[in-house]
Amino acid sequence: MVIVGAGFGGLNAARALRGVPVDVTLVDENNFHTFQPLLYQVATAGLDGDDIAHAVRGIFHRQRNVGFRLARVTGVDLDGRALHLDDGTDLRYDHLVLAAGATTATYGIPGVEEHALTLKSLADAVHLRTHVLEQFEQADARPELVDEGALNFVVAGGGPTGVELAGGLVELFDKVLRRDFHRLAVDRARVVLVEPTDRVLGSFHPRSSARAAAALRARGVEVLLGVGVAKAEEGAVTLTDGSRVPTRTLIWTAGVRAHPLADALGVPLGRGGRVMVEPDLSLPDHPEVFVVGDLAAATDADGQLLPQVAPAAIQGARHAAAQIVAQLEGRPTTPFRYRDKGSMATIGRNHAVAELPGNIRLSGTLGWLAWLGLHLMMLVGFRNRANVFVNWAWNYLTYDRGSRLIASG
Amino acid sequence: MVIVGAGFGGLNAARALRGVPVDVTLVDENNFHTFQPLLYQVATAGLDGDDIAHAVRGIFHRQRNVGFRLARVTGVDLDGRALHLDDGTDLRYDHLVLAAGATTATYGIPGVEEHALTLKSLADAVHLRTHVLEQFEQADARPELVDEGALNFVVAGGGPTGVELAGGLVELFDKVLRRDFHRLAVDRARVVLVEPTDRVLGSFHPRSSARAAAALRARGVEVLLGVGVAKAEEGAVTLTDGSRVPTRTLIWTAGVRAHPLADALGVPLGRGGRVMVEPDLSLPDHPEVFVVGDLAAATDADGQLLPQVAPAAIQGARHAAAQIVAQLEGRPTTPFRYRDKGSMATIGRNHAVAELPGNIRLSGTLGWLAWLGLHLMMLVGFRNRANVFVNWAWNYLTYDRGSRLIASG
Repeated sequence: MVIVGAGFGGLNAARALRGVPVDVTLVDENNFHTFQPLLYQVATAGLDGDDIAHAVRGIFHRQRNVGFRLARVTGVDLDGRALHLDDGTDLRYDHLVLAAGATTATYGIPGVEEHALTLKSLADAVHLRTHVLEQFEQADARPELVDEGALNFVVAGGGPTGVELAGGLVELFDKVLRRDFHRLAVDRARVVLVEPTDRVLGSFHPRSSARAAAALRARGVEVLLGVGVAKAEEGAVTLTDGSRVPTRTLIWTAGVRAHPLADALGVPLGRGGRVMVEPDLSLPDHPEVFVVGDLAAATDADGQLLPQVAPAAIQGARHAAAQIVAQLEGRPTTPFRYRDKGSMATIGRNHAVAELPGNIRLSGTLGWLAWLGLHLMMLVGFRNRANVFVNWAWNYLTYDRGSRLIASG
Repeated sequence: MVIVGAGFGGLNAARALRGVPVDVTLVDENNFHTFQPLLYQVATAGLDGDDIAHAVRGIFHRQRNVGFRLARVTGVDLDGRALHLDDGTDLRYDHLVLAAGATTATYGIPGVEEHALTLKSLADAVHLRTHVLEQFEQADARPELVDEGALNFVVAGGGPTGVELAGGLVELFDKVLRRDFHRLAVDRARVVLVEPTDRVLGSFHPRSSARAAAALRARGVEVLLGVGVAKAEEGAVTLTDGSRVPTRTLIWTAGVRAHPLADALGVPLGRGGRVMVEPDLSLPDHPEVFVVGDLAAATDADGQLLPQVAPAAIQGARHAAAQIVAQLEGRPTTPFRYRDKGSMATIGRNHAVAELPGNIRLSGTLGWLAWLGLHLMMLVGFRNRANVFVNWAWNYLTYDRGSRLIASG
């Protein structure tokens, strides 16, 4: 059988098949898993890129029934049961789990596709870090660039990614770059977070949203609610309220769309381009194909689309693996039931909001400790965990950040 | 005053000027220092790229008289006392320290410039790691590529870099990739080290050379002495003995030439394109310009050109800084005297050769411990040291390597 995607979904589907007498081939266009919840830390120079990535083959050292194939899937022949790969070859399957994840949606807003930076992959994060640091280097060499907006950073979208990124940026500027640049007015750097609805973290309780916005503002982020991006161009962003922010940096976190593989399937798609699935997560008329995670238009008991978060992908992947085992053993499949494990977003050093099952809402330092513990536990592989811990402990104690390298490749 | 280059020379010149009433601007085309002696570890996936790099601005947080400029120096107007930078601006100086280092020399051997990989920068090392890992991924997908030489790796040059790289490659294959690839005959991978003279590590005692060659061979490296590269082409390397090795990977460590900045100076150059200097390391007729490290044709008491190694750059940089202080205080300058601190090369886990002052020669585990301790001590910045230690300890205990990511940027 074949699994497409080495994110939370794909890894967990493969792991759940340990000891099962099937040969699994995991296909991904990168040879590593990316721990997406911490991409913003790489983008804001808090962690090294390697800290949040782990070689897929290393994860399956001891699980001999899992092989890996480094390739991009360009299409699926559902009737012929074969994947088309970008190296021109086909990969046949008897069972298939599609866990290709999601990409960024820009909704056709003029200039966003061409001018905005995104934060969906490790390469995106390293590129964003490089771009941000270059703005400071250039402004240091030519201070007049500050007047042209070189140190203005616009973050579009007040979801967890936008909130965490905005918080990480002001912290980087305030605690690190201020000490790095002896001759530049780092104080003049601005971080503007724009969110079209009336609150940030729309999927959280309104009180958590209010706390997050207040914490961001206290740290110097300009939080603009009820305002979106109307147009992006070289050197400036125009907002929906008609104002114009001179900037060379628009970071787009305001939209998600299923991976283009969904379009290539030629099957009915739901909102956000997500693949319509049966209650057991299989593809209609193709009980041998399962779709999980951000790619699937799965719903909860109330018929609501599931959030595109790691726990939904992990649970869905385990369910899909169990259904494949059931099919192999001649048992019927069962519907998927999502259990909400809560949500978290960090605003910076010492501050996060966390909502846990049972109406538990944490914020401030307590929320941050919960966030820190959960993410350290979740990181794949001890080695990375140890490294990340060294980095975080060092950052915490010294306000230093070690990773602010401008990538030269 | 201005210092060009943030390698061992440039950093140490700037540090030696702490507390001296001069404004220092350090110029480099990267915003980070690269710990070059460990590049081979990054290339063979033993360390992350970020482990051996440190942001220049972070190094000088507490030394307020040092500023940084991210730029490439394209030329020097010695009479006008100004540097031309690649962003089109000029940077004026009263005193100048040139510490731009060295680059690779291919001596016009056909095809080497076009087909060989090099190992002089962090980008080189990450690129080489990516290239090596891709060969295994491709051979895993299409096993017939092994017959075409996809898993043959030719290292040209038996100096410390070639020896360490060859040793690191067999270790990566043997201890890590063999476990990563469940379905590929990793055993068929070959590492061929070619050295035109009759021994590896030509600058060491012949006994150390013999020990290093024996240790490499015991680990599976094919060490060919008295053989060089005659021609490189797509898919193969022809050696000077007429034999032809099918390979997609020629790694060139067989030649060093001073940084092209030396040519741009328009002054007399010595062997390897190195700048001729006065005994005090200043440029003839330009007592305000000092040249240090790999860029300078400085000599020892016997008139021998100094080796292009870190200790020579560090000592030369400190000497140059002291001469500038002497000039500022109206004192005469003094000639530079190089003190040989010995040399080391590691062959792999548990094995290195080390030659220390006083005719002390270590090899095997003792040499390796000496090598490990010295390099950990030398690494710039505690944070990196802690991380590197975590990585090494983990590698040592588990034979795992965490960094084998195929760079996607």
